[in-house]
Amino acid sequence: EVLKMLEDLHPTDIAEIMDKLTMDEAKYLYLQLDGEMASDVLLEIPEGVRRRFLRVLPPEVIAHQFVEHMDSDDAADIMGELEEEVVEAVLSEIEDKEQAGDIADLLEYDEDTAGGLMAKELIKVNENWNVQTCLKEISTQSEEIDEIYYVYVVDDDNILKGVLSLSKLIQKSTHSKVKDLINEDIQSVKTDASQEEVAQIMEKYDLVVLPVVDQIGRLKGRITIDDVVDVIREETGKDYQMVSGITGDVESTDNVWRLTRVRIPWLLIGTVGGLTGAQVLSHHQDTLNHIPAMAFFIPLIAATAGNVGVQSSSIVVQTLAAGSRKFDTLGKKLFKELGVGLITGLFFALLIFGYNYLFSDSYKLTLTVSCTLFIVIVFASLFGTLIPLILHRFKVDPAVATGPFITTMNDVLGLLLYMGVAHFFFNFLG
Amino acid sequence: EVLKMLEDLHPTDIAEIMDKLTMDEAKYLYLQLDGEMASDVLLEIPEGVRRRFLRVLPPEVIAHQFVEHMDSDDAADIMGELEEEVVEAVLSEIEDKEQAGDIADLLEYDEDTAGGLMAKELIKVNENWNVQTCLKEISTQSEEIDEIYYVYVVDDDNILKGVLSLSKLIQKSTHSKVKDLINEDIQSVKTDASQEEVAQIMEKYDLVVLPVVDQIGRLKGRITIDDVVDVIREETGKDYQMVSGITGDVESTDNVWRLTRVRIPWLLIGTVGGLTGAQVLSHHQDTLNHIPAMAFFIPLIAATAGNVGVQSSSIVVQTLAAGSRKFDTLGKKLFKELGVGLITGLFFALLIFGYNYLFSDSYKLTLTVSCTLFIVIVFASLFGTLIPLILHRFKVDPAVATGPFITTMNDVLGLLLYMGVAHFFFNFLG
Ligand SMILES: [Mg+2]
Ligand SMILES: [Mg+2]
Ligand SMILES: [Mg+2]
Ligand SMILES: [Mg+2]
Ligand SMILES: [Mg+2]
Ligand SMILES: [Mg+2]
Ligand SMILES: [Mg+2]
Ligand SMILES: [Mg+2]
Ligand SMILES: [Mg+2]
Ligand SMILES: [Mg+2]
Ligand SMILES: [Mg+2]
Ligand SMILES: [Mg+2]
Ligand SMILES: [Mg+2]
Repeated sequence: EVLKMLEDLHPTDIAEIMDKLTMDEAKYLYLQLDGEMASDVLLEIPEGVRRRFLRVLPPEVIAHQFVEHMDSDDAADIMGELEEEVVEAVLSEIEDKEQAGDIADLLEYDEDTAGGLMAKELIKVNENWNVQTCLKEISTQSEEIDEIYYVYVVDDDNILKGVLSLSKLIQKSTHSKVKDLINEDIQSVKTDASQEEVAQIMEKYDLVVLPVVDQIGRLKGRITIDDVVDVIREETGKDYQMVSGITGDVESTDNVWRLTRVRIPWLLIGTVGGLTGAQVLSHHQDTLNHIPAMAFFIPLIAATAGNVGVQSSSIVVQTLAAGSRKFDTLGKKLFKELGVGLITGLFFALLIFGYNYLFSDSYKLTLTVSCTLFIVIVFASLFGTLIPLILHRFKVDPAVATGPFITTMNDVLGLLLYMGVAHFFFNFLG
Repeated sequence: EVLKMLEDLHPTDIAEIMDKLTMDEAKYLYLQLDGEMASDVLLEIPEGVRRRFLRVLPPEVIAHQFVEHMDSDDAADIMGELEEEVVEAVLSEIEDKEQAGDIADLLEYDEDTAGGLMAKELIKVNENWNVQTCLKEISTQSEEIDEIYYVYVVDDDNILKGVLSLSKLIQKSTHSKVKDLINEDIQSVKTDASQEEVAQIMEKYDLVVLPVVDQIGRLKGRITIDDVVDVIREETGKDYQMVSGITGDVESTDNVWRLTRVRIPWLLIGTVGGLTGAQVLSHHQDTLNHIPAMAFFIPLIAATAGNVGVQSSSIVVQTLAAGSRKFDTLGKKLFKELGVGLITGLFFALLIFGYNYLFSDSYKLTLTVSCTLFIVIVFASLFGTLIPLILHRFKVDPAVATGPFITTMNDVLGLLLYMGVAHFFFNFLG
């Protein structure tokens, strides 16, 4: 009866249940599933588990039990996780040579490109046919395809000409020419477009499916939105981890060693910053000895510098990531950021001036802290804006400029300014 | 000829071009567009511009020129931006009473729920019909709909029973019963499901469209993936801004005042933290006077505490946001985090011990800094993990616990620990 229940579940739900069982229970349950379902579930289990599972299976089992039941894009993704020799062995075991060829084609593309995202399954008709021929062809071709979305129209050289909509098609007389019903106003991408470009186009034009063509416009495959949603999650996840100082994709369920390893790099950068700060302060030991209360405000200055820098940079990074159309010129952006810095700086300088006016006896210290805060906020705003833009210009992912990197830089900058301003107020103003 | 060119462009591209023109040029260009195109472009221009534009138009123009050309979900979104009296006036101007009714229905739902995301446009057939009746109905109903995706099957009470796929339909004999072709294995959501739930379901099951039903299962509308992609962007964008200390949705093209306003709140919290830190330090003034070199390491301790806390919390927040299936128990999570903290803490304590062993003459200071770093890293890891989990338990968005909030808390905690450890080493070890 458990089996009966399983049949009614979605593969994703079965993968979820298996995840909660012991290894042996999960294996037992998995062996009860039929071919189609087993291969759907295989696509949903975590990559590490899948890899270990496939490693012990002979190529013919991988081919007949799993790959042959999959869409070409999923098949290529799974095969991409295998050793090269295994891939060859599996491909030669696949009985449908066309399917094997499709998978081999897809394996040629970089996984982060349109070619790596696309599937070969699509419905294609010739521009010279009439509606009746089309409907017959669609009916034949659609046997292997879950979702149609659009019927693609190509010429004799397989050059993409446009699309037909199924609902329009069934309303027309069977003798109408495809040429007269075709919608030529469509978006497409080249196979080598990056996955970010693909996501931006599909988001911008609200597409559920996007045809992929080669350099001369021949139809090569189509990308469906569900795979692009995964790309969007992946890209935004990466940026989120970057700003929190985590290198590499990690989940809270990963093991302790992996969780530790992804954190060390940015903490090291923070440590270098902290030690540089220590050098700056020891260099100005005299000033600190002279006015010990200066030390009290070190955390305030460092924290404010870091926070302001992260805020500025993250706004720029997010705008760049969204591929936003509206984008101020560099001059205007810096000018505005200067405005933000000046207002914010003035606000906090006055706030702290008020606080120290009430609670501190040294008017020089009061002036020093407020002035430093003002200057630090203005500088941190400008740096936070400039650095991601410079990185972007030099084709480095600007997301690295947020989080710990900018915090660390601004911490050091803040201390330098603090000591400089103190030096000025205490030495020159007597 | 410019007009001819415009006609071939996608509305999104026209909105993009208008954004680069002066106000007058944009207005001139906009007035050249026909009804359908003008209303499509209206949906793509920034909300502020649209609001200002609509405010000066009489209700009958809004109704006939714009709303009547829109899908019900877009129409409801636009109407939601208008004053209540204007909404009523516009609704009464709409000639198609069914359309006006649909929009009025949609305006009832909260914009962040399934009801707020759905559109009324869908194709619906009765389970008792045969294929021929269906095809005729589909053909009639599809005149007002851009994309079909699925044909929904309902019973006499409008209760959702399942879907038909168009491609299957055209392959069947015209006398087949709908009842025999129906796919009952489908996902749906209730109108009051949150937009996050909707996104999670569509992502998990790879859906392009999701039917929405009321409490007793009557079909109310459908949600398409393009609108859910916008939700995903919005939600991940919010979390990203939260971790960078920005409150409220903001883009680098917004004005200076708005850019400033969204930053002040978190900076204020940082300032409170900084001043609390100043209090802690002034409270331990004697210790600092006794060993002035202690001040040098304040930035290192504070920065490390902040960085570790942000890392821990962001991993938890991201796992919670993905609605991840696999989730360790609280005990296991804390135990693992303790492991990460111990390893990381030991690593950095030894690193700094080595550094100070080479460059500092005070063995007590060396011990103090290393011990503090170790303890701070362990505590910051645990707090960073616990706090978002506690917030989540109490139904507060755990994303507020990342970024400046956790940095600030850990800054202060770090200083307290630093002074405590120093007190111990210098007073008790003589
Ligand atoms: Mg990929
Ligand atoms: Mg692929
Ligand atoms: Mg969109
Ligand atoms: Mg849109
Ligand atoms: Mg796919
Ligand atoms: Mg990126
Ligand atoms: Mg900091
Ligand atoms: Mg919304
Ligand atoms: Mg809505
Ligand atoms: Mg998915
Ligand atoms: Mg999937
Ligand atoms: Mg919509
Ligand atoms: Mg959220």
